[in-house]
Amino acid sequence: MTRSPTGHNVTMLGTGLIALFYTATLHGRRGRDSVRVVYSRSEQRASSFASEHGVPQFTTDLEAAVAHRETDVVVVALPNHLHEQAVELAVQGGKAVLCTKPLGRTAEEARRMLEAVERAGVFAGYLEDLCYTPKTLKALKLVRGGQIGDVTWARSRETHGGPHSAWFWDAGLAGGGALVDLGCHCIEILRGFVGKGNRPLEVMCWADTLIHPIEAEDNAIALIKFESGAIGQIEVSWTFRGGMDLRDEIAGTEGTVWLNHFLRTGFEAFTAGQGSDYVAEKAETASGWLFPVGDEVAELGYVDMFADMFDSLERGVPPMETFYDGYVVNAILDACYRSAESGRWEPVRIDDWRGEPVERIARSRREHDGKTVIKEETMPDGRRKLIVKDEASGEFSDVVADALPG
Amino acid sequence: MTRSPTGHNVTMLGTGLIALFYTATLHGRRGRDSVRVVYSRSEQRASSFASEHGVPQFTTDLEAAVAHRETDVVVVALPNHLHEQAVELAVQGGKAVLCTKPLGRTAEEARRMLEAVERAGVFAGYLEDLCYTPKTLKALKLVRGGQIGDVTWARSRETHGGPHSAWFWDAGLAGGGALVDLGCHCIEILRGFVGKGNRPLEVMCWADTLIHPIEAEDNAIALIKFESGAIGQIEVSWTFRGGMDLRDEIAGTEGTVWLNHFLRTGFEAFTAGQGSDYVAEKAETASGWLFPVGDEVAELGYVDMFADMFDSLERGVPPMETFYDGYVVNAILDACYRSAESGRWEPVRIDDWRGEPVERIARSRREHDGKTVIKEETMPDGRRKLIVKDEASGEFSDVVADALPG
Amino acid sequence: MTRSPTGHNVTMLGTGLIALFYTATLHGRRGRDSVRVVYSRSEQRASSFASEHGVPQFTTDLEAAVAHRETDVVVVALPNHLHEQAVELAVQGGKAVLCTKPLGRTAEEARRMLEAVERAGVFAGYLEDLCYTPKTLKALKLVRGGQIGDVTWARSRETHGGPHSAWFWDAGLAGGGALVDLGCHCIEILRGFVGKGNRPLEVMCWADTLIHPIEAEDNAIALIKFESGAIGQIEVSWTFRGGMDLRDEIAGTEGTVWLNHFLRTGFEAFTAGQGSDYVAEKAETASGWLFPVGDEVAELGYVDMFADMFDSLERGVPPMETFYDGYVVNAILDACYRSAESGRWEPVRIDDWRGEPVERIARSRREHDGKTVIKEETMPDGRRKLIVKDEASGEFSDVVADALPG
Amino acid sequence: MTRSPTGHNVTMLGTGLIALFYTATLHGRRGRDSVRVVYSRSEQRASSFASEHGVPQFTTDLEAAVAHRETDVVVVALPNHLHEQAVELAVQGGKAVLCTKPLGRTAEEARRMLEAVERAGVFAGYLEDLCYTPKTLKALKLVRGGQIGDVTWARSRETHGGPHSAWFWDAGLAGGGALVDLGCHCIEILRGFVGKGNRPLEVMCWADTLIHPIEAEDNAIALIKFESGAIGQIEVSWTFRGGMDLRDEIAGTEGTVWLNHFLRTGFEAFTAGQGSDYVAEKAETASGWLFPVGDEVAELGYVDMFADMFDSLERGVPPMETFYDGYVVNAILDACYRSAESGRWEPVRIDDWRGEPVERIARSRREHDGKTVIKEETMPDGRRKLIVKDEASGEFSDVVADALPG
Repeated sequence: MTRSPTGHNVTMLGTGLIALFYTATLHGRRGRDSVRVVYSRSEQRASSFASEHGVPQFTTDLEAAVAHRETDVVVVALPNHLHEQAVELAVQGGKAVLCTKPLGRTAEEARRMLEAVERAGVFAGYLEDLCYTPKTLKALKLVRGGQIGDVTWARSRETHGGPHSAWFWDAGLAGGGALVDLGCHCIEILRGFVGKGNRPLEVMCWADTLIHPIEAEDNAIALIKFESGAIGQIEVSWTFRGGMDLRDEIAGTEGTVWLNHFLRTGFEAFTAGQGSDYVAEKAETASGWLFPVGDEVAELGYVDMFADMFDSLERGVPPMETFYDGYVVNAILDACYRSAESGRWEPVRIDDWRGEPVERIARSRREHDGKTVIKEETMPDGRRKLIVKDEASGEFSDVVADALPG
Repeated sequence: MTRSPTGHNVTMLGTGLIALFYTATLHGRRGRDSVRVVYSRSEQRASSFASEHGVPQFTTDLEAAVAHRETDVVVVALPNHLHEQAVELAVQGGKAVLCTKPLGRTAEEARRMLEAVERAGVFAGYLEDLCYTPKTLKALKLVRGGQIGDVTWARSRETHGGPHSAWFWDAGLAGGGALVDLGCHCIEILRGFVGKGNRPLEVMCWADTLIHPIEAEDNAIALIKFESGAIGQIEVSWTFRGGMDLRDEIAGTEGTVWLNHFLRTGFEAFTAGQGSDYVAEKAETASGWLFPVGDEVAELGYVDMFADMFDSLERGVPPMETFYDGYVVNAILDACYRSAESGRWEPVRIDDWRGEPVERIARSRREHDGKTVIKEETMPDGRRKLIVKDEASGEFSDVVADALPG
Repeated sequence: MTRSPTGHNVTMLGTGLIALFYTATLHGRRGRDSVRVVYSRSEQRASSFASEHGVPQFTTDLEAAVAHRETDVVVVALPNHLHEQAVELAVQGGKAVLCTKPLGRTAEEARRMLEAVERAGVFAGYLEDLCYTPKTLKALKLVRGGQIGDVTWARSRETHGGPHSAWFWDAGLAGGGALVDLGCHCIEILRGFVGKGNRPLEVMCWADTLIHPIEAEDNAIALIKFESGAIGQIEVSWTFRGGMDLRDEIAGTEGTVWLNHFLRTGFEAFTAGQGSDYVAEKAETASGWLFPVGDEVAELGYVDMFADMFDSLERGVPPMETFYDGYVVNAILDACYRSAESGRWEPVRIDDWRGEPVERIARSRREHDGKTVIKEETMPDGRRKLIVKDEASGEFSDVVADALPG
Repeated sequence: MTRSPTGHNVTMLGTGLIALFYTATLHGRRGRDSVRVVYSRSEQRASSFASEHGVPQFTTDLEAAVAHRETDVVVVALPNHLHEQAVELAVQGGKAVLCTKPLGRTAEEARRMLEAVERAGVFAGYLEDLCYTPKTLKALKLVRGGQIGDVTWARSRETHGGPHSAWFWDAGLAGGGALVDLGCHCIEILRGFVGKGNRPLEVMCWADTLIHPIEAEDNAIALIKFESGAIGQIEVSWTFRGGMDLRDEIAGTEGTVWLNHFLRTGFEAFTAGQGSDYVAEKAETASGWLFPVGDEVAELGYVDMFADMFDSLERGVPPMETFYDGYVVNAILDACYRSAESGRWEPVRIDDWRGEPVERIARSRREHDGKTVIKEETMPDGRRKLIVKDEASGEFSDVVADALPG
């Protein structure tokens, strides 16, 4: 045995579910990176997290955790209202910083974090795991390869029965409800499919608190108009019954992509409820038909996300998801909240748009006999039928022919 | 052999795809009802339709077709701009009249048809087939039986590559584009699930012409706010690639329903493209993976729709889908077009709302130790965790206990 | 209203689940045929069946039921051991007779019934509903149209938790266990796909009683070798958990067909178990994820089956499923039981094979450069790769070429 | 950056598709193990493999490759007829050896390899990737946790259009056709689900060469009887159309598991065929509906397989899949070939069975009123119905009661 390539040593800030997923990902699968220090506000949580996950050191001192001399990367896995302070400390320490989603509670907060890392020149990654699911990565390849033509419509949906920690439900700490919690994923997924350089112009959003006894919204739907004409659609809910529904659908001029990340992935089980308690994560029931996923951290994108982060850090290039992306997401979320309030389309305010101008989705223009072809179909008897428009008169008519020129 | 129960004799107005589906339904499966007269503006189409479908008589005289002494029911399967005239003639003839969807091009047109049939007291049915698919009927039974609690969100989607006849593409004749063509189905499906007495208050709609060289919209998305707080979501497109996508999803406080009527119904075929031409209806391709449906007219609701119409006529009761329903759908469509124009929520204008007041979706209110319970979860170790809110301080916190009172 | 075409009047023998499905089918959907007389050994069951299903007359006298002067068709929906007597009575009365599946308990019994109807010249139909499901009919059209080439393998699976009436469990009355109860469906489905003229030569069968405290088999798997070389595979179980699993899969030289008739048909529901009791037929659970079908009698083939029976009767042609088919099925079942006993392939004994000789599945024979082409693939770089065999030396090798002749 | 945990350095024997998958897995995802030396019989292939995959050294000298002083693990990814020699060399070198599947061409060959590694005491792993797919690992956890009770039936299916290299098609080099190539996966998957200590007693196998112009079988089906009474079913084909079909289904006394590893995993795409060439691996078509998987090496089990191998090596314990497992698989394959020849059940000959005796699947025995309960159902009206058997008379009867004792 010789030594393997060197890896990175991580300070993990936080011990909640997301810190657990991150650490499980880094420590699984013979990775070369590892968590060396874990921080929590609670000594008890820090201590038990460290022992459960093989983290050598723990602390309740945030500054000490960030500044720890054995680590070169800080992962921010804290509640939303603590992101900015943690990022600032990492920047001061000159360390690479990876921040969980959403970046800020508002675009203003995100903007300050973006400026801090850019000014200091530290490596910064936006930990948007759902942009890195294996299906999303493959689908992005398909879409960017032109397989579905120009994207016209993209839908991203994330719904479940509500989050697992108290702070999520406090709109002040979280920056909102289901929209900020789940919508941040959906927005960035959509941006990937319509193209990150495709400027989000306006949003229209409905949000309501339908069931839970809280002030924040527990359901929201938003539409985003992009510069190309493409429309994005996000659906989030904290009141969904049946598990966690993670689906994306993309329509293009030449094709379609449907992704199901969680509830229908080719794993189906029925159980009468015998046996040990373990069944499947986030399943609401312990008997009847269940739909587990094979490898949760892989299916949710954590594995590929950290690989991209550390590989990019080593190559000296920005990762696929940057703080700038986090800022754009927050800017869209801000517009969503304004729209939910005003009841109308609201512009997305991005001070510093970095994309190039994007062309409008190409409309087909084909002529037949001096008329515009609207549609062509092959009929059951093999003949071809055209629907054409006479642009002069505005009249539509059918043309059926045995042998139309190709 | 003795004689069977008597049936109805139908005048079929129109010879397009919808008239073909209607006639195939009535003449299939040993039905007791039949088409006796078919009308088309074109003698050639009337004649060939009659001979292909075993209809004894055909004509190009609309008045004569409606007034034909051998028929007691008139089915209007004409382009949208001809519905009103046909309904008026049927009313004058005192005949039962069944009109295809949408009822009118505008609520005003629909309203006149509604008043005409109500004033004359003739039986009138709104031929909204997708409200009658076997899956929809069964799902309505589930939902109305309380299996999913209060409906919070319902989505209905109909998309394909665009209609098959020239008049659909002419916004003047059709009353609009994809929204009026496909959205009328979606709206009425949503009304069924949220409850027909649940008043549609406001709509927000996006519509655009993304690809086809036409004036009418080829894509649209709309949200409908209902009195109970439930939100309806419709998605229509004439630019979808991959076949015809007909899906409905309903979320409730206690459950979820997902329906797929066409592209994924348990019938999957791969073919290298050998053999005869016949493969599957509306499939864009003749090779590769294909997803036919078993019995198209049954899956699309035609069989159950006509059964309800004729059974209701005989029992002297209104059918499940009436001209009033058609009018409400047109009123919602009108609001959608206004909203697409104004960019804001627009009220649904229904002069004559016939529903009773509906209560708001019930919010759960449960207390633990003087605090409001937000969520309860069973933890992996079997203990129960509550997220609670102190209404006085507004603070959220976690409570974990071995043995919480039930 | 004028009178409709005349229909048929039926004597229904039996009041169990199958008689209920048959009657619900005949009396639903505005059909022109109806049940006029129902027979049961129990007066109470006959009486309540008649009143529940609108059957005008009931009796406990089998001969009287069959001979009833108002009926022209006798439907045998009795336990297996009573089929022969009922068929004989119908033959004596000169009536058309439709017998539920399996035709007999043994090929010998089925053979006597076949001879009886053929000698008398009465119309006789074999009520094999699962050969008539809308998906099966459409798939047969695909397969017979050559879309998947020559059929090489076909699998039919029917499994559930066990039948609902006592007599099924009595091997003497039923003629066996799960194999005769469910396998009769599977066998005839397979025959449809490989071609009914494709002689079943030999079978190999495993059968065992794994769970239930009975003598008859509760699980069985059988393979059937057909004359063309195609292999059929049937899987039946009375111990399956999760509902009723009805799936068929057909592989051909040019394609594939997968059918799912029951548990995954595009209807998915989750319920926390609130509301009324009604959820979904044959679901084992009343909460969690459920998979209802839209219209059970249609999806299970009853509607199309009776349409074929009565239409064929009227046209004076044999129906798709005849007593001869029932006899062949019994002959295959007999061979299965012999094989389960002997542990080896057993010949299928059919005295009176009516099919024409069938050719062996065509093997492809293509040469490249004097060698046999085994496989051709397009490589990622666009070049074509051939795997070829030198018939003289027996050696296999790869050939990669930029431009192979087509 | 500090140094990460040390990893392993690998000699990769072979440069075909499987060596490519192995190397891609080891070199992907920030792993700590890496391939240092690659061997091929062809210098050109060795050289280009090394440069494409970042392997520092390559050679055409098998002994030198195995003995290379920089490596501690030898991975055998050679054609089947070369496994034994490679394993012997690794044993002589005292290195850990990981051998691809099948272990041998016959049980005798496998047995010699097993004895060699056990005698020498070197770490040996059987690279059976499909036993390590994320879904399989999770499903094994479910099944071993008792969630589906006793396993009664398990089916494993692997089919595609035929392998990609010439040697596979040569029965002498490969040890057979589709059965040995694909069936080895299926057998070991089944063993995992029924329990590895559950002795395979007898097999029944059908094999035929239906389409390809070869001597080896291109299709096979086999049944395996296990000691517990459970039945295993394997289906393999080199003639399947539509991609690669990898499905496992497990039935138990208390539940059911269905796994789909490849063709239906929640990723669906339709493309009109525009854009770049890249679409999806093993798809037969480049347009129409396609079903890619997200991350092929993860979904096929390679990632978890190597993690288990290296982790076990480091912990000094046997991996989940050992050479003994490979030997058992070969013993079952041998019996399959004998049965395909003899047409009867053939015993599985394992000289050295290491499992403990296993009990028969438990049959339920419950009494009601002195009779054996066969089945219990809740009827639509809420009453309970029992089917019972009088063991004395052998008669079966129904008992319906409002309030049966629980």
